[in-house]
Amino acid sequence: MAQALSLDSIGQARSRLELCEISAEELVESHLERCEKYSWLNAFITLCSQTALRQARLADRRSKKGGAIGRLHGIPLTVKDVIATAGHRTTSGTKIDAEYMTDNNATVWQRLQDEGAILLAKTNLHELAFGVTNVNPHFGTARNPWDPARISGGSSGGSAVALAARIGFGSVGTDTGGSIRIPASLCGVVGLKPTYGRVSRAGVTPLSWSLDHVGPMARTVQDVAVLYEIMSGHDVQDPQSSRHKVEKVSDRLEPLPSGLRLGVERGYFFDNVASESLEVVEGALKQLEALGLELVEVDLPGIELHATARNTIAYAEASTFYESRIRGQPQDIGEDVRELLRLGLSIFASDYLRALEARRVVVEGFLETFRKIDVLASPATMSAAPLIGEEKLANGEDCRSGLIRAAGPFNMTGFPAISVPCGFTRSGLPVGLQLAAGPWKEALLLKVAYAYECFHPWYNRQPKIDKASVLNDIVPRRR
Amino acid sequence: MAQALSLDSIGQARSRLELCEISAEELVESHLERCEKYSWLNAFITLCSQTALRQARLADRRSKKGGAIGRLHGIPLTVKDVIATAGHRTTSGTKIDAEYMTDNNATVWQRLQDEGAILLAKTNLHELAFGVTNVNPHFGTARNPWDPARISGGSSGGSAVALAARIGFGSVGTDTGGSIRIPASLCGVVGLKPTYGRVSRAGVTPLSWSLDHVGPMARTVQDVAVLYEIMSGHDVQDPQSSRHKVEKVSDRLEPLPSGLRLGVERGYFFDNVASESLEVVEGALKQLEALGLELVEVDLPGIELHATARNTIAYAEASTFYESRIRGQPQDIGEDVRELLRLGLSIFASDYLRALEARRVVVEGFLETFRKIDVLASPATMSAAPLIGEEKLANGEDCRSGLIRAAGPFNMTGFPAISVPCGFTRSGLPVGLQLAAGPWKEALLLKVAYAYECFHPWYNRQPKIDKASVLNDIVPRRR
Repeated sequence: MAQALSLDSIGQARSRLELCEISAEELVESHLERCEKYSWLNAFITLCSQTALRQARLADRRSKKGGAIGRLHGIPLTVKDVIATAGHRTTSGTKIDAEYMTDNNATVWQRLQDEGAILLAKTNLHELAFGVTNVNPHFGTARNPWDPARISGGSSGGSAVALAARIGFGSVGTDTGGSIRIPASLCGVVGLKPTYGRVSRAGVTPLSWSLDHVGPMARTVQDVAVLYEIMSGHDVQDPQSSRHKVEKVSDRLEPLPSGLRLGVERGYFFDNVASESLEVVEGALKQLEALGLELVEVDLPGIELHATARNTIAYAEASTFYESRIRGQPQDIGEDVRELLRLGLSIFASDYLRALEARRVVVEGFLETFRKIDVLASPATMSAAPLIGEEKLANGEDCRSGLIRAAGPFNMTGFPAISVPCGFTRSGLPVGLQLAAGPWKEALLLKVAYAYECFHPWYNRQPKIDKASVLNDIVPRRR
Repeated sequence: MAQALSLDSIGQARSRLELCEISAEELVESHLERCEKYSWLNAFITLCSQTALRQARLADRRSKKGGAIGRLHGIPLTVKDVIATAGHRTTSGTKIDAEYMTDNNATVWQRLQDEGAILLAKTNLHELAFGVTNVNPHFGTARNPWDPARISGGSSGGSAVALAARIGFGSVGTDTGGSIRIPASLCGVVGLKPTYGRVSRAGVTPLSWSLDHVGPMARTVQDVAVLYEIMSGHDVQDPQSSRHKVEKVSDRLEPLPSGLRLGVERGYFFDNVASESLEVVEGALKQLEALGLELVEVDLPGIELHATARNTIAYAEASTFYESRIRGQPQDIGEDVRELLRLGLSIFASDYLRALEARRVVVEGFLETFRKIDVLASPATMSAAPLIGEEKLANGEDCRSGLIRAAGPFNMTGFPAISVPCGFTRSGLPVGLQLAAGPWKEALLLKVAYAYECFHPWYNRQPKIDKASVLNDIVPRRR
């Protein structure tokens, strides 16, 4: 039963709950069983078993009573462990905050809970969300269900692993340089980074406040659309939160508008993609063309230069936030993150300010390009998941920069971008297609992603999760 | 004749021009004569005599033809030499840009010129607008007409000197830490720093872009209101320019709204005012009370801490803009400015980011306070003008910090503030009263200032400009 129940999408699960074919308690139990079974994937930092079961029973009682219920009534979700949830610790994946507790829910979780969602677990992440491998020295390496010897990608790695392992129907991730889209791409699930300011960051541990985004992850585009609609919209508790109107989309994913122009930039985004991934992405582009989108080759002047500026901004902002920690208890921070934070402390204001100026130029270039196209398509990552501990990707590029390359520009510009599964490499690893649009165009993005997904419902394919490869693991788990 | 013509306000001058009692050519000639006569005050970097006379003749011909003319038709103005004017160099008060020419007018000057204003001269300033004494090693020390052995204040010193010497009917200044209000206060003229984003900075040499403001200076509040109305409003060429509606005020300065609350903060703004100035300012507060304003004592929590943050922001931003110059040709930059620019280059991004956070706190505190009051009153400077070369003010405070103290908070917050003459010390030096209001409340500020000015038209008093004291000058002019 655990297997079958876990396969459902939010819509299917809600139908079966409404028809009383299953109870919320059974649903939550089956997911908790899978949490236990696959605990060695290290997807979770904290399991919320007792509260989840209690809430499931409450949900069942409320269902029996009749009356109004929320759109996520009885639906188990997970959230990345940078998002505050009352009653459970929020570690931010670091030893220095391993016991941090708060009485307040982050706005994003409050909104989901208000619709009846049940918190199953807090997911593992790259320490402080400051990295893309999810090799976490404090809470273990999140393993990729498609090949547990490989990384999940990060920083929202645990969220993607849980979804790929059919645990929870959705998750909330954060994305500062690709942290939602990278693990979504590597684990074969859907991840949306909305427009900057679209989803409240109140109650979410900051990393780099001018690049940080919160967004939904799920197995299907439709589920991502449902979660996106619930979590987005203005919040007075977040000064950067936008008042821009949120378009209703989850029940309006069809039809695909006609005459859409799909931009492809063949330099920065395609020059050095690992051949196995490239093949899959090119196939997806052809399929999008077959769906009626017009392919348009575009330039993005200055794009090559943006990465240095993005690093400068991210490192400087993160180090400012964590300065007292990095000076006061450096031994409690993992080596890779410690190094980046120290680097950030040595950045001069003039470098930071020039990076902001570079960002302005990049944004202008993107706005210009997005006047000529509706959606930009690219690989979400330059290759499929590398082995744990591997420093290079299949394309020869450094792991960090190769995983961030395609995702990062949309943190600099704040434009929305989604990673949607678009097939598998010959070695059976998932490949993500990234679609991006102009500011506040999430609905358009979701429609295009949905049209593609209807054509190719990759989410039907499931990983055979096999513990054997873990024995060769080169990065030990030090809990 | 030169004397009499120069006494008029914009309104009076426009009447006499319309009645053909004088011609624009005569008016400009009389002002140019005074420019020559008082050239030793070092108010100007570039005289625009030939173009001014040519334009005056054109203006006279257009007047004779009849038809529509602008609100400043035939009115000679000066502009601070950081504001680009086609056909004349814009030096920014520095040797490194001594020959900088552009074909484009800054938006602010274009708007004034479109209303018929005539450019008389480009005024002297503290080098790069980065200082408050206007002791300029390249273009001479701007001297205070009330006592030429004293500083004019800066950085828009030449503009204030010209107005006090009855040259031009108005000027355009810039204000990053008080650079409009400080010289206005020290020279006994009116200077308005509008809300951040209210007046376009396109074509204006930046110093610290998040603190820089452009605004009008004149002898009377009404003239400032006329210039303000013309120069403000959205400009697509300035990304920081606001679309906030500009309220019409120059012909609606009366009546003063009833029930206004006048805030007074007795700590930061009043603790250490030189006694001669304090007496005058306290008198002005009583007069405002007599005009019907209710005096309210207020707190501004955190105000004591803001100065360090403001310096961090100003130095970091200025140094970023001038980095190649300070590294490439330091010998061409005056010692005081060079030192500040070098200091700016050594600021870390984390310090800058913390200063931005401090600014956010200051802004919140001010917004809170301005919910309880309509206008905040304070001295514009902690003392009257010190002698040229003096390092301390009459209150014992360091010259730079004492002159910036009262003005600077309104650059951090971006709130509008005006300095209006409110009397003279016993030694005959002008004292400025600063009035500040919440964002976009320029009209209110101008009304209160106008009501005070009607009660006490200090602009009727004129300096006896005496060259004798210059012989004792301790700072030589090195042109």
